[in-house]
Amino acid sequence: MDYGKYFSADVPSFLKSPVREIFRVVDLSQICSFAGGYPAAVTFPTDQIPSLAEKVLAKYGTKPLQYGATQGIPELRELIAKRYSVPVSQVQITTSSQQGIDVCSRVFLDPGDIVLADNPVYLGALQSFKAYRAEVLPVISSVVEKSRPKFIYVIPDFNNPSGKTMTLEEREEIVRIARELDILIVEDSPYRELRYSGEPVKSIRELAPERTLQLGSFSKIFAPGFRLGWIIGPEPLLEQIYVCKQCLDLCPPVFDQYLAAEFVGSGALDANLVKTIAEYRRRRDLMVGLLEKYMPQGVSWTYPEGGLFLWLTLPENIDTVAMYDEALSKGVAYVAGCFFYTDRSHRNTMRLNFSYIDEAKMEPGIKLLADIIRNAV
Amino acid sequence: MDYGKYFSADVPSFLKSPVREIFRVVDLSQICSFAGGYPAAVTFPTDQIPSLAEKVLAKYGTKPLQYGATQGIPELRELIAKRYSVPVSQVQITTSSQQGIDVCSRVFLDPGDIVLADNPVYLGALQSFKAYRAEVLPVISSVVEKSRPKFIYVIPDFNNPSGKTMTLEEREEIVRIARELDILIVEDSPYRELRYSGEPVKSIRELAPERTLQLGSFSKIFAPGFRLGWIIGPEPLLEQIYVCKQCLDLCPPVFDQYLAAEFVGSGALDANLVKTIAEYRRRRDLMVGLLEKYMPQGVSWTYPEGGLFLWLTLPENIDTVAMYDEALSKGVAYVAGCFFYTDRSHRNTMRLNFSYIDEAKMEPGIKLLADIIRNAV
Repeated sequence: MDYGKYFSADVPSFLKSPVREIFRVVDLSQICSFAGGYPAAVTFPTDQIPSLAEKVLAKYGTKPLQYGATQGIPELRELIAKRYSVPVSQVQITTSSQQGIDVCSRVFLDPGDIVLADNPVYLGALQSFKAYRAEVLPVISSVVEKSRPKFIYVIPDFNNPSGKTMTLEEREEIVRIARELDILIVEDSPYRELRYSGEPVKSIRELAPERTLQLGSFSKIFAPGFRLGWIIGPEPLLEQIYVCKQCLDLCPPVFDQYLAAEFVGSGALDANLVKTIAEYRRRRDLMVGLLEKYMPQGVSWTYPEGGLFLWLTLPENIDTVAMYDEALSKGVAYVAGCFFYTDRSHRNTMRLNFSYIDEAKMEPGIKLLADIIRNAV
Repeated sequence: MDYGKYFSADVPSFLKSPVREIFRVVDLSQICSFAGGYPAAVTFPTDQIPSLAEKVLAKYGTKPLQYGATQGIPELRELIAKRYSVPVSQVQITTSSQQGIDVCSRVFLDPGDIVLADNPVYLGALQSFKAYRAEVLPVISSVVEKSRPKFIYVIPDFNNPSGKTMTLEEREEIVRIARELDILIVEDSPYRELRYSGEPVKSIRELAPERTLQLGSFSKIFAPGFRLGWIIGPEPLLEQIYVCKQCLDLCPPVFDQYLAAEFVGSGALDANLVKTIAEYRRRRDLMVGLLEKYMPQGVSWTYPEGGLFLWLTLPENIDTVAMYDEALSKGVAYVAGCFFYTDRSHRNTMRLNFSYIDEAKMEPGIKLLADIIRNAV
């Protein structure tokens, strides 16, 4: 049977995640993998989960097992509202912050629309925009003046994949562009609470609350297995997102929301965050130290003030896609940087994750990678 | 600020659920409500949840808290595959069966496409098809011959809203139409395992596995708070659904999937299902008895062999939308039947739910409703 004819006109624009495709073919636990973007399991409050489950059932009876409100349970929305100093009416809970991105695509994009985005840009966002047949252009470019974009998408804090953090001036420039073009901003903030050094910079939402949808995530500060995130934004925008969300999945996972509310409300999240930040700061410093120790001349990297990633730039003549099979066969994995560019350029770059790999594998992994790069130079 | 200009061309086609809108304005717990479609909380295995949580963490460590596979965790996919006698490659876990509907819309529909559907049709499906600007037509109609539909959508077992079950002949007719037009079938089966009387009929998937996507749900046999469902279907279709699901939310809730897998795998689901079926059978019989006792001449209803709903047809001159405010003010709620018709016809019908209402409220509720109808005749 030929199934091709049944699909919608959007389907040819669907991109598979190169990262998830790697996971399908290789057991990354057997090698030194800097490829994924998973948080470290040691940061999860695993021991607390059974007692959280008992507590929410004792406190709320069968409510955590029933259908819930489309906007999210009031208890969790109120805690997020308090944490970010916004009215509760400006908070929508999402089934993962990936859903936050997807629902923005769904509600704002038509085929042929333009999104101005980070360059390199987060893969999950690129996939979502492309799946709605939007064009993705770098936000800071001369193209801006000529095109009619629909919104700006950026990760200002500890960017995935680049590891960079926007300065206040860069954020103000984003706001200036958005106001000049009279368009919205989607500020993706999954790592904002994971700062290891330097001073916090005002969020874009704080600079332009009238046109910013800020996406948050519990995946890196609680656990990704619960698939919970949130959107903070102007009520008229959230109202349409709410209606769209009814179609998507009626409501976010209810039981998981009660666990999260109990975790946040009791103060356990903040206590856990202190430990998580200490863990990741140590890992970042270890990684940067190893890069300094092993990488050959001509290799440079970003120094992330937070988040889970850093970004390597190799000498121009090296193609990290071509180098990948050799790296994998020798036992080290990364994500080639060109996948984060819509035009697949910057073939001499790569993204390295420092949150997930076993610490014992960090040194052999970086040493191996340095050797492969040295041979390729 | 005028936000209207930011929205996509799909947004004007978004429909709010009339049911969810009722929930936003009225506290239904204070009245006799037959409106919602919630399962009875007494059917949830609430007492077992803390020990399920402990078990899965003891058995799988931190895996239930980490990101998981986009297709769903292998443990749960295998159990579903076994339960429905299909290969595991034909099973995709979804974040609710509403997501199953939405992902089918996303992957198969373009604006202007036609979906042939039940008439009356499940509201969540209607919302989803409309949000992709598809046209929804009754599956059994002369229109079929003239139009070029994309797929057929039906709930063959214990339909929501009508309570009806398709005979084998009716299912074979659906398959005949689909094969003749060479189109797909989306068989929505959230209630299939909730049969209280009569004999099971072959599913449409069993009759036409090459072109059927069968949607299942844990909401009525475990608990809706976990937002878990599944799709069984041909691999080439699931492959695109898999890529789409990466954009939607990366993966279904992982912790909840492990709870479900433990619940199914240990046999607890089947044990709980026996109790659930007994509970709902009693409620259905109670409801039907009360209708026979109180409803005036000229009112008829379906006798559901399973599921959560029955369907009332009143004398032609009664408008259940016009009658709604009076009913609500006197303390009884229902969903007007016309909302389940794309043309808002059949204004003398209503959907009654018998699973969620307190049993003690059933008799006063039906008596009240009968009085209001008698006055309106």
